[in-house]
Amino acid sequence: MTADATPKSKSKTNPGNFFEDFFLDQEIVHATPRTVTEGDQSLYVALYGSRFAMHCSAEFAIDVGFEDMPLDDLLVFHMVFGKSVPDISLNAVANLGYAECVFGAPVYAGDTLRATSRVIGLKENSNRKSGIVWVRTTGFNQDDETVVEFVRWVMVRKRDASGADDGPEPATVPSLADVVPTADLIIPDDLDVDDYDIELAGQDDLWEDYHAGERIDHGSGMTVEEAEHQMATRMYQNTARVHFDQVLASAGPMGRRLVYGGHIISMARALSFNGLANAFRIAAINGGAHTNPVFAGDTIRAWTEVLDRMEVPDRSDIGALRLRTVAVKNEDCADFPDKDESGVYPKSVVLDLDYTVLMPRRAA
Amino acid sequence: MTADATPKSKSKTNPGNFFEDFFLDQEIVHATPRTVTEGDQSLYVALYGSRFAMHCSAEFAIDVGFEDMPLDDLLVFHMVFGKSVPDISLNAVANLGYAECVFGAPVYAGDTLRATSRVIGLKENSNRKSGIVWVRTTGFNQDDETVVEFVRWVMVRKRDASGADDGPEPATVPSLADVVPTADLIIPDDLDVDDYDIELAGQDDLWEDYHAGERIDHGSGMTVEEAEHQMATRMYQNTARVHFDQVLASAGPMGRRLVYGGHIISMARALSFNGLANAFRIAAINGGAHTNPVFAGDTIRAWTEVLDRMEVPDRSDIGALRLRTVAVKNEDCADFPDKDESGVYPKSVVLDLDYTVLMPRRAA
Amino acid sequence: MTADATPKSKSKTNPGNFFEDFFLDQEIVHATPRTVTEGDQSLYVALYGSRFAMHCSAEFAIDVGFEDMPLDDLLVFHMVFGKSVPDISLNAVANLGYAECVFGAPVYAGDTLRATSRVIGLKENSNRKSGIVWVRTTGFNQDDETVVEFVRWVMVRKRDASGADDGPEPATVPSLADVVPTADLIIPDDLDVDDYDIELAGQDDLWEDYHAGERIDHGSGMTVEEAEHQMATRMYQNTARVHFDQVLASAGPMGRRLVYGGHIISMARALSFNGLANAFRIAAINGGAHTNPVFAGDTIRAWTEVLDRMEVPDRSDIGALRLRTVAVKNEDCADFPDKDESGVYPKSVVLDLDYTVLMPRRAA
Repeated sequence: MTADATPKSKSKTNPGNFFEDFFLDQEIVHATPRTVTEGDQSLYVALYGSRFAMHCSAEFAIDVGFEDMPLDDLLVFHMVFGKSVPDISLNAVANLGYAECVFGAPVYAGDTLRATSRVIGLKENSNRKSGIVWVRTTGFNQDDETVVEFVRWVMVRKRDASGADDGPEPATVPSLADVVPTADLIIPDDLDVDDYDIELAGQDDLWEDYHAGERIDHGSGMTVEEAEHQMATRMYQNTARVHFDQVLASAGPMGRRLVYGGHIISMARALSFNGLANAFRIAAINGGAHTNPVFAGDTIRAWTEVLDRMEVPDRSDIGALRLRTVAVKNEDCADFPDKDESGVYPKSVVLDLDYTVLMPRRAA
Repeated sequence: MTADATPKSKSKTNPGNFFEDFFLDQEIVHATPRTVTEGDQSLYVALYGSRFAMHCSAEFAIDVGFEDMPLDDLLVFHMVFGKSVPDISLNAVANLGYAECVFGAPVYAGDTLRATSRVIGLKENSNRKSGIVWVRTTGFNQDDETVVEFVRWVMVRKRDASGADDGPEPATVPSLADVVPTADLIIPDDLDVDDYDIELAGQDDLWEDYHAGERIDHGSGMTVEEAEHQMATRMYQNTARVHFDQVLASAGPMGRRLVYGGHIISMARALSFNGLANAFRIAAINGGAHTNPVFAGDTIRAWTEVLDRMEVPDRSDIGALRLRTVAVKNEDCADFPDKDESGVYPKSVVLDLDYTVLMPRRAA
Repeated sequence: MTADATPKSKSKTNPGNFFEDFFLDQEIVHATPRTVTEGDQSLYVALYGSRFAMHCSAEFAIDVGFEDMPLDDLLVFHMVFGKSVPDISLNAVANLGYAECVFGAPVYAGDTLRATSRVIGLKENSNRKSGIVWVRTTGFNQDDETVVEFVRWVMVRKRDASGADDGPEPATVPSLADVVPTADLIIPDDLDVDDYDIELAGQDDLWEDYHAGERIDHGSGMTVEEAEHQMATRMYQNTARVHFDQVLASAGPMGRRLVYGGHIISMARALSFNGLANAFRIAAINGGAHTNPVFAGDTIRAWTEVLDRMEVPDRSDIGALRLRTVAVKNEDCADFPDKDESGVYPKSVVLDLDYTVLMPRRAA
């Protein structure tokens, strides 16, 4: 059967947006609102082994002022990110980066999340076959509160890759902050760490005990399995084909299904419990790079460098740490594998994530 | 230790029913009632990546008149089917078909499902080593409402395969409908699609936009993993050994664990979102054939043919589409791989499912 | 970067306790309280295919006096066990055994579990490189009720393996019961099996039908996948590196990730449904040995020997069975593979578990 015989099939299937489909200030409503549940959180623990007490125990969370056990911050991030994929990055050549990610209202089981994106930058590549699209994506709960917001930019194919169209629009490149200022971090009003139990949290180091330049080897490693990263990425309803389709992958340059970068972020965060057990909330992601691909069979380890220790406005009980967590494949982290002076990463480094966490301070 | 020394072990273990154990109008109560939960729905999404808004968002579902987010129709089907396996098909040589599957009361997290089957047909094979059993299986919720009902028929081994018994009973072959009439479809009374949000649903094509004969290539593919199909099939408490036991499989003709056919149905349905996002409910399964086996490592894609567009009695806001979704392994669907004129399927086609979905109509 | 340059990293990461860190009567509070949910129970069913009606149906459980569907006993055991791993057995050379495991208050979705351990025995090995630590670990719910309690003993490395320290303390070896006496079994006060439905439970054999010496081959087998045992073990927040890190495993004597022994216990229990469907609750684990390692790809089958049939104090409606369930890899159980007269197990036997279950008795 030829394509002519089924003209309607072309229009029914969403092929994703191409570079030409985006325009500045475009607002995109992403499909499939999602009621997140205890089932999602349970599966998240099974996929990563996360042990942060705040996300594991309703009692612990309520004792410090949450309404209930909040879902893991990264689970919320991945779900909002996933919703944006069919509209933003289905035709992406590359995910280039993210910035200005701020976590907002805590998300509890039973909340319904939805997401929108606004196009904030566009720049056609000089080869005129693709271009870079910057979007600010926002996740909302059922009360229209922001649960997470971030900027990401992707290189997207043009529908017409011949370069034969009218020529590029003037480029608009947004200016993005290197780090989310502490004044922009969102700390739940009712948060009160007076009764924070370090014994149950699993570590007695608090905010004052960390120092800029300090490096922590998180020790353990976890080997990635195809079923695990596929289940995770489908839970997030991220539809990027490279993660799921071995026939497609076999025809491509890597030959393997690529593990979703967010899966590695979550693995690294879970491993970082051993050394950062009191980093009870990710407040912001300042930036991040997936520096090498990860495939099933790779074993992920992680280490963290403390970049900065920051006071938080109006809070004497809680402080912020700016961290850089580096995930490494198939190699020990005792020697802290890292980029060299020219910024080139060794093949073993797969993630370099710059983010800000909240941590209790010692009582005065 | 010989069998003689442990005579009681034989009676304690359920060997499943053989052809001789079935009789016409026999009523079989299946074991293990199941309280379905948000955890089941969460895992279902992780296994298939389903994105139909009605099953993902309590807000969305309540806005159109449901009490809550209903569990995925096929999750309900698989759970009821699974309950019937230990009694009906543990000694099956082949699952031959199903028909007259009608979905009833929506199932919500917290409902408790149980199942019974009635034998409606029996026909011994001429070799007298096996026979065909037709059963009508019904799933109920805790209020004794039917949640799904279907006929299936299986070829079951005889306990005495010598052919030396009294000879076959007269055959009773039930007459089954080719398609569930629209008058028999069950549409929840309170369903009201006035506030159905096509933007959140993910597609602007509605019932009027589909035409008999139209074909839709759903595009994406998903590679099956052993851990995934095993977890799915165990979630359904389907105990058929061929899905779980590699030692048994290695001794058999295929040499591999066979993926449960229902796993492929759910994959195809999830893939069909891209093109059929507003097919918010499966109302009936008219029939289906698992035309080739699927093993871990196979990549599943799917395409759909619209067989019919049907009005639904007493509803001007909702219509029905009779669809044929074909699942294909390790091959593109751009050319719609299909059976030939003599009805023979290519090796790549693994499922041909004839079913009826509900979809909102355009407002008058 | 040398270790000298990052002195603080050593103190932040928990290296686990070594033999020298333990002292008699030491009380250890384990980290990460856990609110267990329907999601955990759902995933548990998907991982093992358990079909015991009491853990699957809220209706069934409430009909016999529970408040709700209790979580699977072994899920509770694994979660409490998992909490103890970072403190007790991270530096274990071997898990040597467990005893006196008694299940207490039923655990329902929404309960929050925490765990503590008390050191009850210590014995340095004669090579002075390691020693044996006995602990009694107790899991509590949010009302401080005991949900499970058990003794286990592990061989733990010394930090200083030179043997050059002050010399061993006098050994203290606790005396442990071979079997939990029926008087110590905890039976929920409100349990009332008058309305116990054997048809829904799936088997008509009750307590009186089992006899000491009887052996039951549970028939089916399940092949273990890496993703499955890793997800299970992470759900339990068990951090033992041998289960997760293939790079570490490749450098070790086995070359493979070792499957958590508790995963095999749960598989065997789920398989035992076929023959022991009315063993609705595990009341105690008297002892157990993991006699050979299990790796992904192994197919597990199981058989059970009835060791004893015991009356339960003050209950004429419920009895106890002491069982020995033997799990076997890659081999049929028709001949009940077992240890020989000298107590040596064949390579195929991977688990020998001695435990006590509750079962309804026939009405007088």
